Amino acid sequence: MTKEITGGVCAAQGFKAAGIHCGVKAGSSPDKNDLALILSERECSAAGVYTLNRVKAAPIYVTMDHLENGVAWGIVANSGNANACCPGSHENAEAMCAAAAKATGREAEDFVVCSTGVIGQAINIEAIEAGMPTAAAALSTDGSDAAATAIMTTDTVKKEIALSCTVGGKEVRLGAIAKGSGMIHPNMGTMLAFITTDCAITPEMLEDALRDVAGKTFNRVTVDGDTSTNDTCVVLANGMAGNDLIEWKDENYDAFKAALDYACRRLARAIAGDGEGASRLVTCKISGARSEESAERLAKAVVGSALVKAAMFGSDANWGRVLCAMGYSKAPFRPEHVDISFESAAGTVPVCRQGDGLAFDEDLAKRVLSEKEVVIAVNLNEGGEEAECWGCDLTYDYVKINGDYRT
Amino acid sequence: MTKEITGGVCAAQGFKAAGIHCGVKAGSSPDKNDLALILSERECSAAGVYTLNRVKAAPIYVTMDHLENGVAWGIVANSGNANACCPGSHENAEAMCAAAAKATGREAEDFVVCSTGVIGQAINIEAIEAGMPTAAAALSTDGSDAAATAIMTTDTVKKEIALSCTVGGKEVRLGAIAKGSGMIHPNMGTMLAFITTDCAITPEMLEDALRDVAGKTFNRVTVDGDTSTNDTCVVLANGMAGNDLIEWKDENYDAFKAALDYACRRLARAIAGDGEGASRLVTCKISGARSEESAERLAKAVVGSALVKAAMFGSDANWGRVLCAMGYSKAPFRPEHVDISFESAAGTVPVCRQGDGLAFDEDLAKRVLSEKEVVIAVNLNEGGEEAECWGCDLTYDYVKINGDYRT
Repeated sequence: MTKEITGGVCAAQGFKAAGIHCGVKAGSSPDKNDLALILSERECSAAGVYTLNRVKAAPIYVTMDHLENGVAWGIVANSGNANACCPGSHENAEAMCAAAAKATGREAEDFVVCSTGVIGQAINIEAIEAGMPTAAAALSTDGSDAAATAIMTTDTVKKEIALSCTVGGKEVRLGAIAKGSGMIHPNMGTMLAFITTDCAITPEMLEDALRDVAGKTFNRVTVDGDTSTNDTCVVLANGMAGNDLIEWKDENYDAFKAALDYACRRLARAIAGDGEGASRLVTCKISGARSEESAERLAKAVVGSALVKAAMFGSDANWGRVLCAMGYSKAPFRPEHVDISFESAAGTVPVCRQGDGLAFDEDLAKRVLSEKEVVIAVNLNEGGEEAECWGCDLTYDYVKINGDYRT
Repeated sequence: MTKEITGGVCAAQGFKAAGIHCGVKAGSSPDKNDLALILSERECSAAGVYTLNRVKAAPIYVTMDHLENGVAWGIVANSGNANACCPGSHENAEAMCAAAAKATGREAEDFVVCSTGVIGQAINIEAIEAGMPTAAAALSTDGSDAAATAIMTTDTVKKEIALSCTVGGKEVRLGAIAKGSGMIHPNMGTMLAFITTDCAITPEMLEDALRDVAGKTFNRVTVDGDTSTNDTCVVLANGMAGNDLIEWKDENYDAFKAALDYACRRLARAIAGDGEGASRLVTCKISGARSEESAERLAKAVVGSALVKAAMFGSDANWGRVLCAMGYSKAPFRPEHVDISFESAAGTVPVCRQGDGLAFDEDLAKRVLSEKEVVIAVNLNEGGEEAECWGCDLTYDYVKINGDYRT
């Protein structure tokens, strides 16, 4: 039985975290944490998934290299600069690991490294190196909150979760923090998400579980169609729960994967709902599909459509844009079979049946679409498969935030 | 020698046009034309390209059917309603052709029919039928302007062009009107564009020329990534210029195609620059590519990126977003070879060389990016091919226009 607990990335046994302000970005507020450190007291099985963008930031290459042996001890991450597309970025990513290692008595290769922020400007590595001893000294089992705030950029809410579940008769805990608000689109590794667990599991099984789960959670989010250069999702599992090591895809693997899926799904929805400038979370559920893959493709096209997003901002039941977006998704379906309704806590409004518009109560539709979470429910009436994807509305604030983010 | 002349779709011999207000949209201003009619005095070779959206509006199917024989006499089109995804839409599209035929003494099958506006609401066919005799009576060689305004929706400027060129020793004229502002994205047939010419050319040669040209002009525009259900580009050629009939891809075909390309390129740029809410035309030129196809894919990704578009709105030289968009385009290139500069009438600012950022004058960059037309110039330094695509910036007004377009 999976239940939510507190503690974030420190909920699992043997993990400490810290978040401090070191001044990565010139002129940033001393109240804004910008350096996060997470450390396990034992070696962890480790797995990562990364952006599919051809332009990858240097920290991704360094992390891939450090995780090649399938083990790690900790994570070091900064906000305020993406450490991407700049001379010396690879050396600086290595320097971050070296500084973390020196401050914690470990090796540079034991660390995952991530950066998030502006692309193409030199990172202030001196500030990070100077701040690292402070971060290491601040490591504690209460540190998840501080670490979660240290990786935020334009995020308006902290994204953190912790779960307790049972694997092979033992209590296993899993916690995570994430960031993500803009430059977010499916078809990627994911945004930044750090997951810790005390589950005993091999690196191979951990990677399989993570790939599967990320594909159905983080990769089903879109904010603006822009796949970042820095997306990384990493999970560290230190085995301290004492469950029998998961080496096969047995019922214990399934139990662990269910908890991982629960956590990632929650964070994915949180990222979509906190999309840059967003005023509401928009979910598109496609049901009655012949395959999950085509349902996913259709749902992604709907939540990714600028016109659907703008209509959601205006609480406008403009379902023609939903059908139009499905039409250019390249997934097969028959428009003349499609039913569409808008749903939220305020009610359900069917707007299209068998591809043709229905008369509906415009006032009720307005109320339904004015809620913080709205669902665009589409039934293809062609099969038994389904998928849902998450996005947000397109608002004046998105334009404002991104019209002058760099300076 | 191709030169620009006046007259729009009536510049070529034997064409008349009209645009009137008939009241397609309830409560619309009597000053807003909403019904356009174009008629040739002789039978025309005719060719069309259409949206690739799986959800196609009824008028597209009717037009495809009417053009199956490769000939037509005229075009009837309305704004204010897309006549899509609504019971009876096919019958209403046929009824528009029948009404045009009755008012002009022709057959319904002689007409191309197009509609543009909101999807999913019943079209007011009675208003169109009632207005058709007025439109027919208004047909004149001065009618291009009125027809051009009759197909506008959120367009802020009329899109019209006429050219004179020489084909086989004869003066050939070609004119066009177009509309397009939102729901515009490459990978489509195109938006609405009607082209008339007195060139003598077979339907087969006309179709080949149109497909080639549309692929390199209209299909290289994006406003918002949403491919419409109604996009149509049609060309009518009545042969009255008296040139020898173009039956082969000879120098006469090339001369005609060059004029067609000139006209379509101008209209494509006009549509991009008049994108919904746009304050500037953004061109991305990719040079030094190994293939034109990959150059086009890269350029499309750049002008289609919400983050690049928002940066262009803010006159922010955020070139990292340019490289990021190229990275997720799925086209092959080496980030470490890429040079990027921003260009406009105010100057040129190199911002990235060999994949790494350059120091640049922020004030100059701001001035360069504040012009009405800006170019993002990218050299891949890998080959001799190139392509350019056109888009616009993402502004508060785009969100405003689309937050409540339907009501």
